[in-house]
Amino acid sequence: MNFLTQTNAPVHTAFLSPQHVAEIVQTRGLAQVFAGMVETLRADFLRWNEFDKTARVASHSANGVIELMPIADAKTYTFKYVNGHPGNTLRGLSTVMAFGVLADVDTGVPLLVSELTLTTALRTAATSVMAAQALARPDSRVMALIGNGSQSEFQALAFHTQMGIEELRLYDIDEAATAKLMRNLAGTSLRLVKCSSAADAARGADIITTVTADKTLATIITPDMVRPGMHINGVGGDCPGKTELHADVLHMGPVFVEYAPQSRVEGDVQQMPGDFPVTELWQVLNGSATGRTSDAQVTVFDSVGFALEDYSALRFMREQAIALGIGEPLPLIPVLADPKNLFSALGAPASALAAHPPVAPMTQVTQGTQAAEHLA
Amino acid sequence: MNFLTQTNAPVHTAFLSPQHVAEIVQTRGLAQVFAGMVETLRADFLRWNEFDKTARVASHSANGVIELMPIADAKTYTFKYVNGHPGNTLRGLSTVMAFGVLADVDTGVPLLVSELTLTTALRTAATSVMAAQALARPDSRVMALIGNGSQSEFQALAFHTQMGIEELRLYDIDEAATAKLMRNLAGTSLRLVKCSSAADAARGADIITTVTADKTLATIITPDMVRPGMHINGVGGDCPGKTELHADVLHMGPVFVEYAPQSRVEGDVQQMPGDFPVTELWQVLNGSATGRTSDAQVTVFDSVGFALEDYSALRFMREQAIALGIGEPLPLIPVLADPKNLFSALGAPASALAAHPPVAPMTQVTQGTQAAEHLA
Repeated sequence: MNFLTQTNAPVHTAFLSPQHVAEIVQTRGLAQVFAGMVETLRADFLRWNEFDKTARVASHSANGVIELMPIADAKTYTFKYVNGHPGNTLRGLSTVMAFGVLADVDTGVPLLVSELTLTTALRTAATSVMAAQALARPDSRVMALIGNGSQSEFQALAFHTQMGIEELRLYDIDEAATAKLMRNLAGTSLRLVKCSSAADAARGADIITTVTADKTLATIITPDMVRPGMHINGVGGDCPGKTELHADVLHMGPVFVEYAPQSRVEGDVQQMPGDFPVTELWQVLNGSATGRTSDAQVTVFDSVGFALEDYSALRFMREQAIALGIGEPLPLIPVLADPKNLFSALGAPASALAAHPPVAPMTQVTQGTQAAEHLA
Repeated sequence: MNFLTQTNAPVHTAFLSPQHVAEIVQTRGLAQVFAGMVETLRADFLRWNEFDKTARVASHSANGVIELMPIADAKTYTFKYVNGHPGNTLRGLSTVMAFGVLADVDTGVPLLVSELTLTTALRTAATSVMAAQALARPDSRVMALIGNGSQSEFQALAFHTQMGIEELRLYDIDEAATAKLMRNLAGTSLRLVKCSSAADAARGADIITTVTADKTLATIITPDMVRPGMHINGVGGDCPGKTELHADVLHMGPVFVEYAPQSRVEGDVQQMPGDFPVTELWQVLNGSATGRTSDAQVTVFDSVGFALEDYSALRFMREQAIALGIGEPLPLIPVLADPKNLFSALGAPASALAAHPPVAPMTQVTQGTQAAEHLA
């Protein structure tokens, strides 16, 4: 029996580390992982109204933000913990780190604790593909990729494997980032064109993807770069005070978002009045709203990242982990012979635990520390 | 170097299971753990205004609730995940299960993932003691303990070791619960008196502690049971629709709460008008509000459990884990040589990962599942 699904222990929590997620990707292949994630995302977006969509809970500080993103349907609850600390790279740390939990709504048992740093990059790219499959011209073959940081390889390979993108036009203000991206994509069948500016990258592109990192009200994409028929996949304008698209670009064609109440605060549409028209993507997917109406139309996906995407990503990774037998058990919840006898989890009788001096004297501290060094 | 504090890896998350927490309690002894927790709680309550106190985020379902309880000061962020599913015991599961995370505000790095099922029981009892030290008569020796479930041993031993309680008068509608409590407390120097009713238990008590579990608007304690000088430690009336004290009991003496906005929704004071006078405990601790004013006064602590208590508990357990070298590393966040090269965490070049068929064929599924059985 697989430890991820075994039922002999009433509480069983599985753990997926970044190494486990990498193992899933190595085993399945990136094309199949992206395809599976897009399929899972679409299935969940199509039952949009079944979800209890709570606002994300943010704790802001001088250096950054820590957020919790919960969501639930009648069966499954998930939340993501994610930070955003732009100064972290100077300390050798990632700007964004994340993990999440998937729990059973009926009992509250946490079924999975998983890394979500890698997984979020995969799900963000999969969400971009899901939107582009509904909004971009099907004959799109050339994509500008502006911002060549942590997210860029994932966007590149998701569009390559799922949308038939053959040529990438690359630009980043940091040339080292572009060099890193080109090294990472070497050996794939993508044609890589290093460009001298965002405008140069946009030239001849069918799709423009922006994944820049600076937390500023930037205008990476201006109207002069946009040609009829383009699809703009705006990923990096995703929190208050962080935009990438000139306001006039948002007037060039219909704007699609994940969840309007959140996007109006966090997305590029934060620049626009509260009644600026936006369409939620799930409505295009289920046919209740119109997507692209002609080959000449410009379409804009103003992506910010929504809790439902993490729900889908956790669900997908859990299914893969179960199918492939990847992961480890995590002893997070006490296993009790009698659920009303929590005290038994202390592992010793009260008469011993409450005695003075304690069972084990304080001089064991040193031994304990030495023992722990083997764990380091 | 201790793995909990080592600095050679930029991201280092420690993990404490229920077994680790039990090991801390076994090593330190319950008296010292309760004393240390009360000290930590008091230190944190005394800097009440330094905390960013967010409302808890609840997701309600047919069978129960799942909540996230975040809180932060300028240095440390914590949150707790906790469920409440009254029907769980029928499935052999605990009604309440919890875990939590302590993170560094400056970088967003999760420093500790810990079980909080056991730890919450310890911190709830420690909070009750902290309140009673400020509010109960110092010569209190007899405590009624009404509700003999999961929390009862912790309350009993906290008051025994920290407040000098010598006699417990026990009552529960479920006689098996009382029998379990008496078995668990056997061999301690506590005198245990099994009582025939809540009123019988209250007779002669200096302190009445209520820790009942039923989610009903109950009146476990009625005014006729309350004598001058009593302190009432009301722990079980802690969510909307769940009370233990008759409204008239709340009129018998001053009522103290943790955080008024939350307690007016969740505590026994949910029965009272919005302007019913309550005093926040931190104000008594720092001397800005009056606690007990005479030996004849009745005092009421209407406890619901507040995120700051979990912050203190996580902080205390982390300090103990570091001092004792208890715990394990948890690989939750990718360790990257270049923090801008997240793609490298996939552990294989794009040319291999994006190839068709994938690096490892799907037929490895079976092998993977077999391998995972060894982990079960």
